[in-house]
Amino acid sequence: MNYSQEHQADFLEGLKTFLRIPSISALSEHKPDILRAAEFAKNELLGAGMTSAELIEDAKGGNPLVYGEWLGAPGKPTVLFYGHYDVQPPDPLDEWKSPPFEPTIRGNDIFCRGACDDKGQVYIQIKAVESLMKTHGKLPVNVKFLLEGEEETGGEHIEAYVKSRPPRLKADSAIVCDTEMFAPEMPTICIGLRGLVYYELAVQGADHDLHSGVYGGAAPNPIMAIAEILCALKDRNGHLQIPGFYDRVVPPAAKELEAWARLPFDEKEYTEKEMGAKELVGEPGVPLFERVWARPTLEVHGIKGGFVGEGAKTVIPARAVAKISTRLVGDQRVDESIEQFKAAVKAACPKGVTAEVKLLSAGAPSLTDPDNKYIHAAAEAMKQIWGKETVYIRSGGSIPIVGVFDKYLGVPSVMMGFGLPDDNLHAPNEKFHLPNFYRGIETVARFLEILG
Amino acid sequence: MNYSQEHQADFLEGLKTFLRIPSISALSEHKPDILRAAEFAKNELLGAGMTSAELIEDAKGGNPLVYGEWLGAPGKPTVLFYGHYDVQPPDPLDEWKSPPFEPTIRGNDIFCRGACDDKGQVYIQIKAVESLMKTHGKLPVNVKFLLEGEEETGGEHIEAYVKSRPPRLKADSAIVCDTEMFAPEMPTICIGLRGLVYYELAVQGADHDLHSGVYGGAAPNPIMAIAEILCALKDRNGHLQIPGFYDRVVPPAAKELEAWARLPFDEKEYTEKEMGAKELVGEPGVPLFERVWARPTLEVHGIKGGFVGEGAKTVIPARAVAKISTRLVGDQRVDESIEQFKAAVKAACPKGVTAEVKLLSAGAPSLTDPDNKYIHAAAEAMKQIWGKETVYIRSGGSIPIVGVFDKYLGVPSVMMGFGLPDDNLHAPNEKFHLPNFYRGIETVARFLEILG
Repeated sequence: MNYSQEHQADFLEGLKTFLRIPSISALSEHKPDILRAAEFAKNELLGAGMTSAELIEDAKGGNPLVYGEWLGAPGKPTVLFYGHYDVQPPDPLDEWKSPPFEPTIRGNDIFCRGACDDKGQVYIQIKAVESLMKTHGKLPVNVKFLLEGEEETGGEHIEAYVKSRPPRLKADSAIVCDTEMFAPEMPTICIGLRGLVYYELAVQGADHDLHSGVYGGAAPNPIMAIAEILCALKDRNGHLQIPGFYDRVVPPAAKELEAWARLPFDEKEYTEKEMGAKELVGEPGVPLFERVWARPTLEVHGIKGGFVGEGAKTVIPARAVAKISTRLVGDQRVDESIEQFKAAVKAACPKGVTAEVKLLSAGAPSLTDPDNKYIHAAAEAMKQIWGKETVYIRSGGSIPIVGVFDKYLGVPSVMMGFGLPDDNLHAPNEKFHLPNFYRGIETVARFLEILG
Repeated sequence: MNYSQEHQADFLEGLKTFLRIPSISALSEHKPDILRAAEFAKNELLGAGMTSAELIEDAKGGNPLVYGEWLGAPGKPTVLFYGHYDVQPPDPLDEWKSPPFEPTIRGNDIFCRGACDDKGQVYIQIKAVESLMKTHGKLPVNVKFLLEGEEETGGEHIEAYVKSRPPRLKADSAIVCDTEMFAPEMPTICIGLRGLVYYELAVQGADHDLHSGVYGGAAPNPIMAIAEILCALKDRNGHLQIPGFYDRVVPPAAKELEAWARLPFDEKEYTEKEMGAKELVGEPGVPLFERVWARPTLEVHGIKGGFVGEGAKTVIPARAVAKISTRLVGDQRVDESIEQFKAAVKAACPKGVTAEVKLLSAGAPSLTDPDNKYIHAAAEAMKQIWGKETVYIRSGGSIPIVGVFDKYLGVPSVMMGFGLPDDNLHAPNEKFHLPNFYRGIETVARFLEILG
């Protein structure tokens, strides 16, 4: 039994301590928790044997980055571990079976907000490095860590920091553990991500709420206006009606589409069990993996307006607000997509109301050529630990830092993730599969050994 | 100076006491306030000289009716006063300039939830009767009061009670003070009301919230589904797309349209000052008064779903809920309209979600022939007190009891209201114009004298 196998119980206790900190970046009242989580991660890095670790504060008040390094392997490659210590808000609270910030083990899973996304996977990276360090007193390659606390809210701080091209971030490859395996027991590397641009749409009608009896038929209704705008932006088939939006969409190569078609997939299981839905929707004729990995989408995440209490209130509300995002793929450019979105909202805005679009975050899509030694090493490490060939997939999600590392540091990323499809990311009852947690630690350690 | 003029200060204090009771029927936690308001009204009726007054409890747990009577004028007509002691919820709270349940006088207006709708007008009725009683020791006609506490939530209790045709409700005419004057200083009688059917639409997609990156492009989105349903039910011109909905709409007679066209009206003032809007919307080519008084409408009053906190959360919500109502006119029938609405929602519901329609309340439209002696007496009383000819209008609002009195008791209603167009009914900063409060009392007293 090696160090990591011997210390599974300690690792689990450490993970629980990390998970108990409600480091919700979207809610400003959790700023103290953000700082506690950052401190915790820093101390863990020092405990794992990094020669130095520190918080990088943001002059603009953003959440601190956590940086650590061990550079004791001259001549060897340098890998940059990336992860995030912030988490999504836990609501709706009443759907959690155990409290969202009290790690609770049921079966082989640990349930907690952030268990998989991304504290569990950050902890895998740290404990892999610690295991090698405790076993050999040194690491086979040079290692840097850059952890952020704003991934769930757009990652402004890390993006600004990386764009400044700090010399300490020089590396040969970034290792991102923030994705999932295609299926249980199926080692997976993700080579493509969709971009994400997130907006808040506020629509104002009259300057005060109006009686729907007295004014209904003459007064503008901002909720109806948001409905009309949404329906103008996306048709009932899920096809976007934003002019120009598909111009730079690059279809996946035939070889990639063929590989996706070979992935084991049970649509009924995916729909009913994993998603808990009646049926799948989306662009007719486009295969599922292409729809979720390689096609742009528009989703409305939340909407608020008027009277939503118990009973009936006959009011035409003065104002309504919706949260809307677009996912980008292929060669779509963030700035161009924002202009296209804003122009489409403007064109769709009905008379009598004003629509204001506020940009909350923006990240470009990314796609990596899998033919490089870091991805090969990761695939080999996964294969050795899981005993199966590693598959290459994309993800429909967005990790903006991957594009930023590539563009500003020239560092390609290896997206080696240990989540599972039913881990309920961003939803109630988020979990992490404990065997994946322990094997993930062994896999990352093996990856570093292969590289060294 | 007569009794009512001498006691204006007392009447104002009494009104303030009535207004301070937050008798919000839509919110069940205000049930004790409902009961306090009912008791207050009952005691006021006794104080005004009614020979008896009592609460009529509802076996189904609804809010009590308040009934009072004085029948000391044999051979004279019997009038049945109707009003309601419940009020709308006050939200949004932060838009009130003074606390919603602390009556506050600014200029010639008293600001409070319920000031105009309808406590102020109920109090006019009671104080008019009191003034006559204190002056003459008797009334010129027989008087009954029936006040309800569920007008703002659909009035189930009063409707069930009236449908049982209790002998004590026998009357020659009902007097409803719950409408408004067309313009300041313009005595007005309302002869038509729209019906109101109020629904809650709940749409369910997956059984849990989903990550919009992972599932966007395949997962149903209930907010988007509500948007699609709304847009299918009503086009961008405000024209309803519910099959059959216009079949029984009766256009106003040419004579009535001509009278409406003669009403003094400044569209800019109405739009910008009264409504606080940029421009009017609604069916093109249909004159404004016809749009708001004689055409059916559909409005969405509130919507809730997904993440609406600060910042960004990339979730596809499992569920969204909207409050929607239709207004009915002409010969439209409530039950038929409900079937039409439900069928249209079903037809418009996109794939992947289930839409559930819950009926919250329903009231039929009503239209009275103005050629009867009670309306003539009311018009004459208003003319005498205001010194101007009384105009006849309709209202776009709904007072379901008017149709119920007519249908089940054979009692026509006189809708003699003292509100003003800028009284902010159902909105923050509801007010009542104090000169209208005092003149209203004199008008109702004069009306009874003319009848007697």
